[in-house]
Amino acid sequence: MSRELTRLTLRHRTLCGRLAEHDLDALLVTHLPNIAYLTGLRASAGAVLVAPEGLHLVIDSRYSTVAATLIASESAPAGLQLLPVEHSYDETIGLLLGRTGFRRIGVESESVSLRQWNWLNDNLRGTDVTLVPVEGLVEAGRIVKDAQEARAFREAGRLIAEAVSPILALVKIGRRERDIAAEIDLTLATHGFEDRAFSTIVASGPNSALPHAHPSDRSVEVGDLVLLDFGGVYNGYCVDLSRTVCIGPVSEQASRLHVAVLEAQMAAISVVRPGVMASEVDAAARSTLARYELAEAFGHGTGHGLGLEIHEAPRVGQTGQPGTDVILRPGMVFTVEPGVYVPGVGGVRIEDDVLVTEEGCELLTNTPRGLSVG
Amino acid sequence: MSRELTRLTLRHRTLCGRLAEHDLDALLVTHLPNIAYLTGLRASAGAVLVAPEGLHLVIDSRYSTVAATLIASESAPAGLQLLPVEHSYDETIGLLLGRTGFRRIGVESESVSLRQWNWLNDNLRGTDVTLVPVEGLVEAGRIVKDAQEARAFREAGRLIAEAVSPILALVKIGRRERDIAAEIDLTLATHGFEDRAFSTIVASGPNSALPHAHPSDRSVEVGDLVLLDFGGVYNGYCVDLSRTVCIGPVSEQASRLHVAVLEAQMAAISVVRPGVMASEVDAAARSTLARYELAEAFGHGTGHGLGLEIHEAPRVGQTGQPGTDVILRPGMVFTVEPGVYVPGVGGVRIEDDVLVTEEGCELLTNTPRGLSVG
Repeated sequence: MSRELTRLTLRHRTLCGRLAEHDLDALLVTHLPNIAYLTGLRASAGAVLVAPEGLHLVIDSRYSTVAATLIASESAPAGLQLLPVEHSYDETIGLLLGRTGFRRIGVESESVSLRQWNWLNDNLRGTDVTLVPVEGLVEAGRIVKDAQEARAFREAGRLIAEAVSPILALVKIGRRERDIAAEIDLTLATHGFEDRAFSTIVASGPNSALPHAHPSDRSVEVGDLVLLDFGGVYNGYCVDLSRTVCIGPVSEQASRLHVAVLEAQMAAISVVRPGVMASEVDAAARSTLARYELAEAFGHGTGHGLGLEIHEAPRVGQTGQPGTDVILRPGMVFTVEPGVYVPGVGGVRIEDDVLVTEEGCELLTNTPRGLSVG
Repeated sequence: MSRELTRLTLRHRTLCGRLAEHDLDALLVTHLPNIAYLTGLRASAGAVLVAPEGLHLVIDSRYSTVAATLIASESAPAGLQLLPVEHSYDETIGLLLGRTGFRRIGVESESVSLRQWNWLNDNLRGTDVTLVPVEGLVEAGRIVKDAQEARAFREAGRLIAEAVSPILALVKIGRRERDIAAEIDLTLATHGFEDRAFSTIVASGPNSALPHAHPSDRSVEVGDLVLLDFGGVYNGYCVDLSRTVCIGPVSEQASRLHVAVLEAQMAAISVVRPGVMASEVDAAARSTLARYELAEAFGHGTGHGLGLEIHEAPRVGQTGQPGTDVILRPGMVFTVEPGVYVPGVGGVRIEDDVLVTEEGCELLTNTPRGLSVG
């Protein structure tokens, strides 16, 4: 039994344990990263019906060759079968659900659309199949990374950290945000990433005060705060990093914002260890910024989980927010990215990625965080 | 009244006509491209409640500055109001729906998740609000582009056509697919696109037989078919283009595939005019490939609509397939992209974008389609 076989079969068995807890005979998995997690197939469409007996992968002709190769490989989970789409996904899935003999089949309520839900229920009318909305059954496994995933994250973190210096060198007076962003994407590709993890952000001067600005035609000016936020996908796993830099003389105000955010980030990272609540990590950053009277300028959470998705569990935010009241465990990976945004002045965000270890945490993206680059 | 005001206000009024037809007091718009279409705001989260009285835009703090600027601008639709997210989107939307006094509120069933649907219904229990699943009300307007959108498409088509020659020059013996893809993305950026429209495909040799291959570490070899599929976003609108090339001597088999696909594409484009069914465009391509005994090798539809999304209505496929039994009208924009895929040999796809005009169609991406580039 190969290592891969062990991993994917283990994921299947763990999930089946959760199905039993929910009194489900099977689970229809429609969230694509969950399909990738369970089968190893990264596709832009598909579905998997998971039952203790095995997994049915429903996939259209675009992926039939890749899926056939996957099933024949030793990394495939035990009991994986291919079901090619006939006519449409809806109809193929509908037929599958009706013929299996399962009575209680869970569906992923965050991923299934209301239209699909209604279609499937109409289609199953008159059968004794009951579809049951469930949430987070596959994600409950994904939140803790296994040893092989942790190795992928260490390597991805090393690669993105190496890219930081050439990326900061792209920021020059007179260059357009949009052109810098395009060159960042190229730099990520040449540093070993198979894709960017999201649309790269380059926000200069007043634009840096907009937490999710699209790169614009604005050119970098002397004294600007320039906020860079970029991520890469490595072996399917996403890493995410932000730096804020300033070219030329740094104003007192910019320097103060930068110091406050850096201190907040250090405070947040320092509390990361097993047993701590994710919200406590957020609180450490937030209270530090409050001491600088910048609490109001910090309008987002401190971080988010990383994995096959760029945003996944746990959410590192204020207690009471969805997904954030989670106790940290070894193997969790998330960003720590406090930021402050002052309209008309600019913004500073500093973001790194951490892996929770038995003792505390490991900084995956160890690279300088200085404000001044030239 | 400015041109922009006229456009977005017109969209709002047209949509309200459709609400009346469905006996709806309001529509909760959650599909992000629909939000962009109605308000001009392109965000990664948000919701709009549309009623004859006006539009409520629900948006979180990351977009508050951008949204405030939008509302103050003359391009905003009449009656647009901002509602900042408090605590969560669910709760803010739930409060809004409960307090408006509307009784029948449509929700976009393709976009709303089962989880959201259940949450909103639980939240509205005891009120006299009824949520009604609806489909395609906003999309019914988006399928026909207005004059300003047609201008954006002409310009985007011209830009991507200009990029083809430098992009083909990136394909060289020994270069990795992944590196070529990264350089294509950079080329799109330097040719005026604000972003790529999807993950660029570079598939060489046997990989070209996989219609949706991810760029790999494989290097281009002499005699390979190399399939390039890339798209750009210009002013929010997506264009999409594919070329297949061969470096060095072209085998008889490769040449035959290329000629068949080119002829199929020409046949499909030649039937595009108002009054024709989208499925007839597909049939023209399909029957041409059948004459080459390649019908089985053409496993996807002939094209898809373009707009604020890279895949939207109309779908250009076989009759009976969802979204494809549509009569073409002036202002529709879609791809024409027949392809053949022969496992072990390779694939050829040729893709261009067309705008349906009063008389016939306009080829938006007029640039050579030759197989041999060196």
